[in-house]
Amino acid sequence: MESTPRSETTRRVSLLQRLLAEEGLALALIRQAADLFYYTGTLADGFLAVAPDVTPQLLVRRPLARVKGQVPWPVLGYRDLKELPGLLREAGFTAPGPVGLELDVMPAALYLQMKERFFPSRPVLDLSPLIRRQRMIKSAYEIDQLKRAAAILDETFTEVPGLLKPGVTELELAAALENRLRLLGHQGLVRVRQWNLEQFYGHVMSGLSGLEGAYMDTPSGGLGFSPAFPQGASFKKLAPGEPISVDLVACLNGYMVDMTRMYAIQSLPPKAWEAYRLVEELYGIFEAQTRPGAECGPLFHHLWDAVRTRGWQTWFMGQAPDQVKFLAHGVGLELDEYPVLAARFPYPLEADMVMAFEPKFFLPDIGMIGQEDTCRLTPDGMVWLTQTPREVVVVD
Amino acid sequence: MESTPRSETTRRVSLLQRLLAEEGLALALIRQAADLFYYTGTLADGFLAVAPDVTPQLLVRRPLARVKGQVPWPVLGYRDLKELPGLLREAGFTAPGPVGLELDVMPAALYLQMKERFFPSRPVLDLSPLIRRQRMIKSAYEIDQLKRAAAILDETFTEVPGLLKPGVTELELAAALENRLRLLGHQGLVRVRQWNLEQFYGHVMSGLSGLEGAYMDTPSGGLGFSPAFPQGASFKKLAPGEPISVDLVACLNGYMVDMTRMYAIQSLPPKAWEAYRLVEELYGIFEAQTRPGAECGPLFHHLWDAVRTRGWQTWFMGQAPDQVKFLAHGVGLELDEYPVLAARFPYPLEADMVMAFEPKFFLPDIGMIGQEDTCRLTPDGMVWLTQTPREVVVVD
Repeated sequence: MESTPRSETTRRVSLLQRLLAEEGLALALIRQAADLFYYTGTLADGFLAVAPDVTPQLLVRRPLARVKGQVPWPVLGYRDLKELPGLLREAGFTAPGPVGLELDVMPAALYLQMKERFFPSRPVLDLSPLIRRQRMIKSAYEIDQLKRAAAILDETFTEVPGLLKPGVTELELAAALENRLRLLGHQGLVRVRQWNLEQFYGHVMSGLSGLEGAYMDTPSGGLGFSPAFPQGASFKKLAPGEPISVDLVACLNGYMVDMTRMYAIQSLPPKAWEAYRLVEELYGIFEAQTRPGAECGPLFHHLWDAVRTRGWQTWFMGQAPDQVKFLAHGVGLELDEYPVLAARFPYPLEADMVMAFEPKFFLPDIGMIGQEDTCRLTPDGMVWLTQTPREVVVVD
Repeated sequence: MESTPRSETTRRVSLLQRLLAEEGLALALIRQAADLFYYTGTLADGFLAVAPDVTPQLLVRRPLARVKGQVPWPVLGYRDLKELPGLLREAGFTAPGPVGLELDVMPAALYLQMKERFFPSRPVLDLSPLIRRQRMIKSAYEIDQLKRAAAILDETFTEVPGLLKPGVTELELAAALENRLRLLGHQGLVRVRQWNLEQFYGHVMSGLSGLEGAYMDTPSGGLGFSPAFPQGASFKKLAPGEPISVDLVACLNGYMVDMTRMYAIQSLPPKAWEAYRLVEELYGIFEAQTRPGAECGPLFHHLWDAVRTRGWQTWFMGQAPDQVKFLAHGVGLELDEYPVLAARFPYPLEADMVMAFEPKFFLPDIGMIGQEDTCRLTPDGMVWLTQTPREVVVVD
């Protein structure tokens, strides 16, 4: 059982206390699973209470027995949410001033209940931008976890070529890879932050399946089995001459890494190869310009300009007009972390950010041609965490 | 590709229009994936707008091309949320009065933005209780979907006895069953409504793993691989003499069914058999008293009284004090639907409700002993959808 070192969680909470003081927040109550795990190293039905100059407290509805002893701070039990203000007072959280809650993920009904009953006269602000900014810079421990997740992903992808036969369904291919990842320690659940962004292991698609528009903020969708979850593998059979894409997320001890590779049986149309060469060109630009200090906006526009110069802008990152507005997304405890390689992402790149770059083309009558790798920024530039050779593997 | 018949979605939306009129709501905007699929038969990044006397409209940010033609109503595209009020006006949603949003699942930040910018002077109410009430009564089409989900679950469980060997890990057992379910058409994703309620395929547990307290509103937790997702199967090896429980959800075309069965290698301690006999006794009470018109409160208390009479109340539905407050939960497009068999659930049972009954004991030094089946209410009483024989299977 791999646990987050206490030096990690205490350092993370100390930094949060400093950020709260800088932002003028008197109290933060953290409840969402990924955030709670990040700061405490455990999960509970409860709140982590943090203030600039008070000992943090974990307020837990359940399970009390398991959580005690897992965190370096006092653990207080409660049965009903209405006990919260009393517990906070007793624990010394008495300073007046704005309260921070995770307003991008906390349901409105809970927010309204807490605002009205507990903080009727205090400003309640969104704590999440601050948390997401802190979480986007990974520690050495986190980088190590991410490297291990990348390793099981690389190992799984070595199995793909042997599974590619005409007549095998996308589902059969996906299920074999999911099974392999699971046995290598994939925790199963893939956490996402954005509401209605749903994710299973990933998207295994072939031919025209790759052109199905996504109902959420991802470039590819996939056909899925039904309109109930129109995403990922379908019952369609693999066929010669079609692009076959395998996009999978590995998640180990909460940390996830994202990769896509292209395959084909026998051949691919010339247009698909042309798209793949443009993907490789975009990788070249990304590798050269992704370094600490770089701004996301100019890099984003540089990449899009390269696509426009070739006249491929209608098919890039979705089919127009259903295109997503990013080219890379941060990964860590969630699949949609900061940074976001987009036109208006406000923070410059820094060392120890980790993100998945995924230039993808959606070619009419052909399918999806793209690639994805997860990289880490170092003081000297970027290094790839995913190491499966970049190539289109064509099997007989 | 199995699609919801249009007669279903038009009937569902007509009933919603009637319910809105009864509740005095002038406009409902539906956005959450499960709700949106229920009313439209598709998924999109967008809102379904419904009002008592206006033609429903699907307002879609993406993917526009795929969604058009999938629904019987007009589809209007938008690129930015701020276009919403204009689109609604043009489509005839001009009646004044309260607006309904899904406040139990919509993030507070989105609620605040919509309330402030679009509905500053109109009451915004929680639409979800009404939606959940409507969704708890299943149509013949939905019952058929649920029966098919039950069938792949029953088929998967036939494989369990052959997989039980000392030294096999919980993970290996879980992964084999997950793979089987997936190949039978399980869509992968299991939708839940409650915030922070996270679910993968289910919980495969053995011996003391079964006693790990859940961090969410479920009786069992499981150890998982790490505190990042302390739930479900772990790397622990199966051993003779321990209770082995397999709790899996099947999800077909969005519809899910839940079942738990008990197994052992060679033997179980006498106390475990005693618990299992009490589980069977509780099934007897449930089968006799679950019928249209019955109130959940008295049935809940009757079951708990039977447990108290035997002195087992400390270990029922979790270990005290970490016990859940329900004995059965509705299932359908989400794992935590109405009805809830709890002390204060406000609606009486009705025909065509579907729920999973899961009496479970958590015995110190032994593990979890329990069972779960999904049933449907008919005018004459209840019938089980899951049909795997109820027994503890002991292999050599």
